[in-house]
Amino acid sequence: MDGNSFRAEHADGLDATTRALTERRDAVLGGSYRLFYRRPVHLVHGRGQYLWDADGRRYLDVYNNVASLGHCHPAVVEAVHRQMQELNTHTRYLHRRILDYTDDLLATMPPELGPGRARAMYMCTGSEANDLALRVARAVTGGEGFIATTEAYHGTSELTSGVSPALGSGQPIAPTARLVPAPDAYRTGAADVGAWFADRVRAAIADMESSGTRFAGLVADSIFSSDGVLPGPAGYLAEAVDVVHRAGGVFIADEVQPGFARTGEEFWGFARHGVVPDVVTLGKPMGNGVPVSGLVAREEVLAAFSDRVPYFNTFGGNPVSMAAAQAVLTTIRAEGLQEHSLVVGSLLLAELRVLAQRHECVGDVRGAGLFTGLELVRDRGTREPDGPLALEVLEELRERGVLTSVAGPHGNVLKLRPPLAFAREDVGTLVTALDDSLTALGR
Amino acid sequence: MDGNSFRAEHADGLDATTRALTERRDAVLGGSYRLFYRRPVHLVHGRGQYLWDADGRRYLDVYNNVASLGHCHPAVVEAVHRQMQELNTHTRYLHRRILDYTDDLLATMPPELGPGRARAMYMCTGSEANDLALRVARAVTGGEGFIATTEAYHGTSELTSGVSPALGSGQPIAPTARLVPAPDAYRTGAADVGAWFADRVRAAIADMESSGTRFAGLVADSIFSSDGVLPGPAGYLAEAVDVVHRAGGVFIADEVQPGFARTGEEFWGFARHGVVPDVVTLGKPMGNGVPVSGLVAREEVLAAFSDRVPYFNTFGGNPVSMAAAQAVLTTIRAEGLQEHSLVVGSLLLAELRVLAQRHECVGDVRGAGLFTGLELVRDRGTREPDGPLALEVLEELRERGVLTSVAGPHGNVLKLRPPLAFAREDVGTLVTALDDSLTALGR
Repeated sequence: MDGNSFRAEHADGLDATTRALTERRDAVLGGSYRLFYRRPVHLVHGRGQYLWDADGRRYLDVYNNVASLGHCHPAVVEAVHRQMQELNTHTRYLHRRILDYTDDLLATMPPELGPGRARAMYMCTGSEANDLALRVARAVTGGEGFIATTEAYHGTSELTSGVSPALGSGQPIAPTARLVPAPDAYRTGAADVGAWFADRVRAAIADMESSGTRFAGLVADSIFSSDGVLPGPAGYLAEAVDVVHRAGGVFIADEVQPGFARTGEEFWGFARHGVVPDVVTLGKPMGNGVPVSGLVAREEVLAAFSDRVPYFNTFGGNPVSMAAAQAVLTTIRAEGLQEHSLVVGSLLLAELRVLAQRHECVGDVRGAGLFTGLELVRDRGTREPDGPLALEVLEELRERGVLTSVAGPHGNVLKLRPPLAFAREDVGTLVTALDDSLTALGR
Repeated sequence: MDGNSFRAEHADGLDATTRALTERRDAVLGGSYRLFYRRPVHLVHGRGQYLWDADGRRYLDVYNNVASLGHCHPAVVEAVHRQMQELNTHTRYLHRRILDYTDDLLATMPPELGPGRARAMYMCTGSEANDLALRVARAVTGGEGFIATTEAYHGTSELTSGVSPALGSGQPIAPTARLVPAPDAYRTGAADVGAWFADRVRAAIADMESSGTRFAGLVADSIFSSDGVLPGPAGYLAEAVDVVHRAGGVFIADEVQPGFARTGEEFWGFARHGVVPDVVTLGKPMGNGVPVSGLVAREEVLAAFSDRVPYFNTFGGNPVSMAAAQAVLTTIRAEGLQEHSLVVGSLLLAELRVLAQRHECVGDVRGAGLFTGLELVRDRGTREPDGPLALEVLEELRERGVLTSVAGPHGNVLKLRPPLAFAREDVGTLVTALDDSLTALGR
């Protein structure tokens, strides 16, 4: 969940249209609906890495990994349009698209999750994928208890909310779950963050089992987005995954955030760590905005569930969803977006490190590919987080035509996660806007 | 869930392409994937109420309420295409579509669920809508226990699966849930099926509370689709809903099946009964195949959840989903589909009753609008259900170019639920195909 979202009552100084729309939202939508920014942004158009508001103002989008190829990418628009004119129906009839896509998807996985050794299923949202993943993990282990990190977010369903502490105190964590601190190299100061994290996982399993709950698995996104964007050194997750496996649990790699070429070095976030998950869940960027999600699991892991419980998702895997998903995979390859993410992400990281030399409030800069966290602090020595400053920076960036958000337990980490269309030229735009924002705020 | 779905190993006598596709599915998709028909249908095209297979053979679709306006309806195709070219992003920025649609949606509700008294939220699947509905019901009542019918199906998530006995014995019903028999006027022979059903609900509440579980609510689709398509006399549900309310519970109307003009008499299934639900869930036909779902609830009911627990659905309510949903509402009005459903549904019912005079195996024919159940029995006197015959009829119908499915605890009820594009001319096609199928089977 994101720290810079507001209810309508926070808004003031709005133009008439923005005020009217904000009031209409407040009147007819459920109270859960939140808006970004004190003066909400009324968007009407998107293209590539850019968004336009109703006044024709252009924004550089540094937040949306859903429109991962870029907003309104023509390959997805056309693939969906063509398939929608032909046929869109459920998976109890035969159709080639779901099979062609699955072949293509499994080919991106490590051999242990590849063709002949893993199987795929399709849903519509990351929450649905994670809900099923947790059920699969329970079925194969006979366990009940999951481990997640202290700011994790894995979904909106009842089951996934129970392992999503980012939802806050109003949503209880499942009594069988245990939370572990995320592997934050900056804040823990651990010399070996992998060993540090594995120790926490080991202790949580022991605590869980001592209270009579059988361990089912660890669920984590390998970049720990909600915990503050913690890519860490590639490979460090391997030790924790090993602990999970030795305790008889499964590792669920939630790729909703780091998947689909985002982290640059590898196509999947978990692959950066050289680990093989038992279950992989896919979401947000999978259809470039079309609601499609998926689950890939080792054959024997999935069978423990599928042999016993029917599962049918009405819209899941339909020809239009699969056309969108196929266009995404094809375009990532055709446009070389994984390498682009690596190259432009590295450039951005380097420029942000230069920026940090000019602004004492930048405590840490870290990233993998085009997924970057910039951590703001009151004092570099004490590393005291500065969440209020981060919120002010967001507002200043918005005034300078850059949209993004914050993450982490203290809301002090700028989450820089643009569409992969984000180009070399945009690095300068973003860094200049950040520089000017921090200067304007006297920091 | 539907009774006529098979694993690939059941298939024989397939042409080469069908066999190849079936084997590919079996190799790469999870074991949960099932196919309709012994010889699966390989579809490539759809238009209106018709579907075409790879050999160019046309089928009359008498099953799909998802493509409710008709397959590939141009209004939806064009609305989605236009919006996909403009913008598709999440609800933390302002956008008009979600507000215009919500105004239009709430105007279809009874005054107690209309503007100023109810609020809407949007997700991607009926399962997500029902999962949230159950959580809302728990939040507002402080209760835990739900009542559902003995063959109900409300979703694929962990929480909704717990009130979905149609999933079979592999999926346990939630320990806090209670099941009641559906209001089946044909099989119970109850003179007043409303009083009969209300008695069952009353007893289930008493049983639940005597075991220490506080009652949260009743969840039901008002046509009891999975229980065998039981429209019953309009109004009969009112007594049970009254029992629920007097016991402090909420009534969740699952409109995934009967909603959006399907039952003809009213726009919503619950409205046939003159009841006002506390929560209404929307799904399948809402976007004519685009994954969009929703929840409408009385303001104070929803607030009990929303004031405490954050909820954000990444794809829910996005401009493309809302464009599809708007095109559906607009087209239902523009094409007069509610009245069409009533008129053509009544004609179909009348013709099926004539058919029943020629075939002793037809035990009952019932329906509301274009949602019809035809119940097959071994003997009209004993009403012994004939599930095996129903499966044979499905296969015979498929040979005659008609696609449909079965429902009910005995799998003996043909579920006739075509796209609303189903026309007067199609009544004759369907009835003739049924007549010929029963004759061919010697019944």
